[in-house]
Amino acid sequence: MLIQLEKSIPAQMLDNIYKELNHYGFKPSLVETLQAKYLICNGKKEADIRHFGNLPGVLDIHIVEDANKLVSRQWKVQDTRILFDDGTKISRDDLTIVMGPCSVENEEQVVKTVEFLKENNVKFMRGGIFKPRSSPYSFRGLGIEGLKFFSAHCRANGIKVVSEVMQVSQIEPMYEYVDVFQVGTRNSQNYNLLDELGKTDKPVLLKRGMSGTLQEFLASAEYIFANGNEKIILCERGIRTFEKAYRNTMDLNAIPYLRDKSHLPIFSDPSHGVGIRNYVEPMALASIMAGADGVLIEIHECPPKAFSDGDQTLDFYQARRTIRRLRETMEFRKKLMVQ
Amino acid sequence: MLIQLEKSIPAQMLDNIYKELNHYGFKPSLVETLQAKYLICNGKKEADIRHFGNLPGVLDIHIVEDANKLVSRQWKVQDTRILFDDGTKISRDDLTIVMGPCSVENEEQVVKTVEFLKENNVKFMRGGIFKPRSSPYSFRGLGIEGLKFFSAHCRANGIKVVSEVMQVSQIEPMYEYVDVFQVGTRNSQNYNLLDELGKTDKPVLLKRGMSGTLQEFLASAEYIFANGNEKIILCERGIRTFEKAYRNTMDLNAIPYLRDKSHLPIFSDPSHGVGIRNYVEPMALASIMAGADGVLIEIHECPPKAFSDGDQTLDFYQARRTIRRLRETMEFRKKLMVQ
Amino acid sequence: MLIQLEKSIPAQMLDNIYKELNHYGFKPSLVETLQAKYLICNGKKEADIRHFGNLPGVLDIHIVEDANKLVSRQWKVQDTRILFDDGTKISRDDLTIVMGPCSVENEEQVVKTVEFLKENNVKFMRGGIFKPRSSPYSFRGLGIEGLKFFSAHCRANGIKVVSEVMQVSQIEPMYEYVDVFQVGTRNSQNYNLLDELGKTDKPVLLKRGMSGTLQEFLASAEYIFANGNEKIILCERGIRTFEKAYRNTMDLNAIPYLRDKSHLPIFSDPSHGVGIRNYVEPMALASIMAGADGVLIEIHECPPKAFSDGDQTLDFYQARRTIRRLRETMEFRKKLMVQ
Amino acid sequence: MLIQLEKSIPAQMLDNIYKELNHYGFKPSLVETLQAKYLICNGKKEADIRHFGNLPGVLDIHIVEDANKLVSRQWKVQDTRILFDDGTKISRDDLTIVMGPCSVENEEQVVKTVEFLKENNVKFMRGGIFKPRSSPYSFRGLGIEGLKFFSAHCRANGIKVVSEVMQVSQIEPMYEYVDVFQVGTRNSQNYNLLDELGKTDKPVLLKRGMSGTLQEFLASAEYIFANGNEKIILCERGIRTFEKAYRNTMDLNAIPYLRDKSHLPIFSDPSHGVGIRNYVEPMALASIMAGADGVLIEIHECPPKAFSDGDQTLDFYQARRTIRRLRETMEFRKKLMVQ
Repeated sequence: MLIQLEKSIPAQMLDNIYKELNHYGFKPSLVETLQAKYLICNGKKEADIRHFGNLPGVLDIHIVEDANKLVSRQWKVQDTRILFDDGTKISRDDLTIVMGPCSVENEEQVVKTVEFLKENNVKFMRGGIFKPRSSPYSFRGLGIEGLKFFSAHCRANGIKVVSEVMQVSQIEPMYEYVDVFQVGTRNSQNYNLLDELGKTDKPVLLKRGMSGTLQEFLASAEYIFANGNEKIILCERGIRTFEKAYRNTMDLNAIPYLRDKSHLPIFSDPSHGVGIRNYVEPMALASIMAGADGVLIEIHECPPKAFSDGDQTLDFYQARRTIRRLRETMEFRKKLMVQ
Repeated sequence: MLIQLEKSIPAQMLDNIYKELNHYGFKPSLVETLQAKYLICNGKKEADIRHFGNLPGVLDIHIVEDANKLVSRQWKVQDTRILFDDGTKISRDDLTIVMGPCSVENEEQVVKTVEFLKENNVKFMRGGIFKPRSSPYSFRGLGIEGLKFFSAHCRANGIKVVSEVMQVSQIEPMYEYVDVFQVGTRNSQNYNLLDELGKTDKPVLLKRGMSGTLQEFLASAEYIFANGNEKIILCERGIRTFEKAYRNTMDLNAIPYLRDKSHLPIFSDPSHGVGIRNYVEPMALASIMAGADGVLIEIHECPPKAFSDGDQTLDFYQARRTIRRLRETMEFRKKLMVQ
Repeated sequence: MLIQLEKSIPAQMLDNIYKELNHYGFKPSLVETLQAKYLICNGKKEADIRHFGNLPGVLDIHIVEDANKLVSRQWKVQDTRILFDDGTKISRDDLTIVMGPCSVENEEQVVKTVEFLKENNVKFMRGGIFKPRSSPYSFRGLGIEGLKFFSAHCRANGIKVVSEVMQVSQIEPMYEYVDVFQVGTRNSQNYNLLDELGKTDKPVLLKRGMSGTLQEFLASAEYIFANGNEKIILCERGIRTFEKAYRNTMDLNAIPYLRDKSHLPIFSDPSHGVGIRNYVEPMALASIMAGADGVLIEIHECPPKAFSDGDQTLDFYQARRTIRRLRETMEFRKKLMVQ
Repeated sequence: MLIQLEKSIPAQMLDNIYKELNHYGFKPSLVETLQAKYLICNGKKEADIRHFGNLPGVLDIHIVEDANKLVSRQWKVQDTRILFDDGTKISRDDLTIVMGPCSVENEEQVVKTVEFLKENNVKFMRGGIFKPRSSPYSFRGLGIEGLKFFSAHCRANGIKVVSEVMQVSQIEPMYEYVDVFQVGTRNSQNYNLLDELGKTDKPVLLKRGMSGTLQEFLASAEYIFANGNEKIILCERGIRTFEKAYRNTMDLNAIPYLRDKSHLPIFSDPSHGVGIRNYVEPMALASIMAGADGVLIEIHECPPKAFSDGDQTLDFYQARRTIRRLRETMEFRKKLMVQ
């Protein structure tokens, strides 16, 4: 059961609701986000919930059988939209394209990428400044100094900054410079990190664990929401299977499934998903038709020189074509679905 | 190395080519199909292949590094088309839709399905008459008697028959009644069956093994081709992964990969691929954008009453909408890709 | 529900049992093996089964909730033993060692291997004469001619012949020369083959499918049993996972699970299971401690010259040590388990 | 290439080595642990390494082709032993048994468990005080307060404390109370955490990621070592596969593989590995025969009342039997392997 409370419910009114719920055997958890207040009730199922709906301070009340209640579509039928101060929005009506290099390498690279994105009207730039690498001897990112110039160039050009946070201690220093915190696949179940990101007011782009089930994925989103942050984007990025013909096996089945079960926006990351440059565009277009709201694609002025992940990275020429085809595909989908 | 020979090469000329190849250390395998003759040379790589190209009886000669040479795009850049006597074709230019029930249940069901397909101009009907079931106590199909009326109704209405063959001994009795032999996922590496289907002149729709790598999939196709049958359709139908939210994990990554590596037509089977009715259409549309040439979709007048696989089966109302959307998506793809 | 019938139950008595069962809504399947007669009742669960137990001709009656009833331990608590005419037995009390080459290559190889096995008192020799190969251009086995001399040398030395059957049509020509039919991983769900092997009176060593769940594995065994053959050996041989450090991932968890759920003997095949020579012995010893009754191990006088699978094959020196350690480990296990 | 340096090498001597290495195109990374100093050289391979071996300050020099050099057996043939101040050791010669509850629940539970362990001469107790849970509404552990009494009772009885650390910020408050830091499967690639644990002087029990390849596992260990901590224990705990008959698929193949590739001690965790109580003992015994040096097993006075993971937990009666059988199996293995 999920109870939507009045945002400014007086303490005594809330106390009264607790008493009633306790009387009927429920042990509610209070969730307070920037937008709203909720009570999550696990456990007993048999009570007549209409009774609670009449209590003062209760806006609405829903039976939610899904384990991960706040992110479930069972209480929130409408798709969640994420709005930024300048009017940019992430929503089902629009295609969100996020592009940029795997790693931020130097200022010149950022300048050229920002220029490319601006020319092509792409509103979000991704770039790693803390890199999880499979060897301790590899390049591990420029850190906060890199983020500063990355952020400065983006903001001077109206572009939002998306960057991966790997650690609770990085949230505070990154906060000022990012617009969207990205959580990588290796941290998809780092619950301490999710807890702390739930206490910020910036959107979180949460990647699926490389062997994460969709139930675990939704549970990770629930962690963020339950700590107070409703601005969550679910991102499919490929899972680990027996097949070794590609880097990962991008699981597009996840898109209609998540669309069905959750109200959160869904992105796809075909660059990591399939991990082979020539297959990135077909997988990106396929993910739109499967129902995705946005895509993350790695681009680089000269992929063979990229510090990391060059084999899955598009150059600017390829990226331009892919942007155009993605936009046409989204237009086509919108028309097709209303017929 | 793959050598294309003149179809009617005289024995002595062929003998001469063998001698030359043996002299250079190659041990060629001769493949003779209805369309052409080939020599497949494994082993030594270092010879100057231009020398062989000048031998009488040789049409062309190609370095093919792929293990599965006949099905490789390294020697045959153009997409393979499969033509039927009445002019129907399976090709990259057209969308092939194959629809029908999981199991053929009775004549009335066939009549109604044929009627539906005819109304909607669908040219291929699928239907199982031998069913691989996970329990020996389950319904195992109507057998050849079912195939007879299934085939009769289809042919009276200009519809081609697609049905699964499970066993070498079934090829001969089925031959007269089917237009396309389907090989199911459990038989994807049944090499005796593939050998024998390679000796027929009917197209083979080969499903990927449920845990088959793409290299194994292409090897299975190579078996059919090497026995003389060039008419092969590769069909992605979902693989087995840790994720249990769906019946299988449909692997759309396979589509751009197979398109890149092989000249054979590629179908997708979203009904088995994702295995949940409401996700079949988005996965079908996605597979078109990923590059598929055709789709197999299970339909039934009343899915809850289907003998098998009802949960993944569309009713006629849903199927009608999906057919329309698939066709519009293929038209859209064709336009998008030439821009 | 599983009903054990008197082996020589008169037709009328059986008819009477059918009537009673039908009256209560059951649709029984009659299974007749060389040893016994059974009725398998799926469907309704609610009847008081004691009533049926009193019917004439009924020996015993069991509630069996497992889907695969005949192979379930729910009705047969004691481990199944397989006896051969000469007194050799496969049973929980003894360690069965099956050794031999992947492929039978020539008569000299068979002579040397038989000699080695005899010296070491190993009672079963494996050897492939029909080989499923991943390329149509690879060596595919010597066929029946190879089986003839393989069998002759074994039998002259009191050794039993274990060889893979890939096809229904091979059962009859192989029958005379083999003592145990092996079903390979690719045919683990070839139900036509399982049906026909169920009609023979020779033991069947059934390998788990490379991506077969344990429920599917037991269902395949049920197919054999339901067709009349109770002599079935379950063999774990490695599954397909994301890990590529070994050929397959040998799943020892399967051994206590199958021991718990089924009364059939359980073997392990560490040669295919892990697929790396130096890890074969530790995995073989581990499988004994996990509860296996027997092991299949590939050996060759000179593994680097083996036609197939040389990398996972032990030479005779290594095999001698492994045989000794396996026997000591089984002795140790027997003592440990009774304390 | 890995260069072992004199522990107290003067700065100038080190500088000289750097110059020589740079001259030959190497870019060395200096690693300093409590025990030793190393230079790790990636990149160029062609130099004659004997030359470097003669430089003052160099103890020894090794070609190490493995990507993860410090943890590789290619330079360190002998098994690593971990010694504690009181003489307790983790080594190939001894069986290390670690037992305790999944979660520390209350002081009484700790007291009873410590008593049981002491009676049975078990030297290590495990117990979670920070719990990664799949729902934000579940019990998440007692935290540092729980650790304090857990630690006090253990130390009063000569038992070492093993507890999971989930976050960099937990290292410092936990440090005083634990003897071994455990890194859970979800944090197996949390490189920031591994970096920081590498800077402590306490042993780290590192669990394999639930979908971690063995190369990734060794890379994670390399992170800890490269930051200065040589006391690392590798622990196999089950991987995620398609099989759902058990909680995870315990991968015993990893044990001979890791033994072969690394000098670090190897433990197994059958409680999480197979996750079903009755299969824990056979899998534990099997892991010893596969080559494990120690086991982690969850125990609880009353498993059905455990806060978490009760289904995989042994009660004290079962644990007593398993301890005895484990010790006898280790004795047996030691004798068997020297014959």
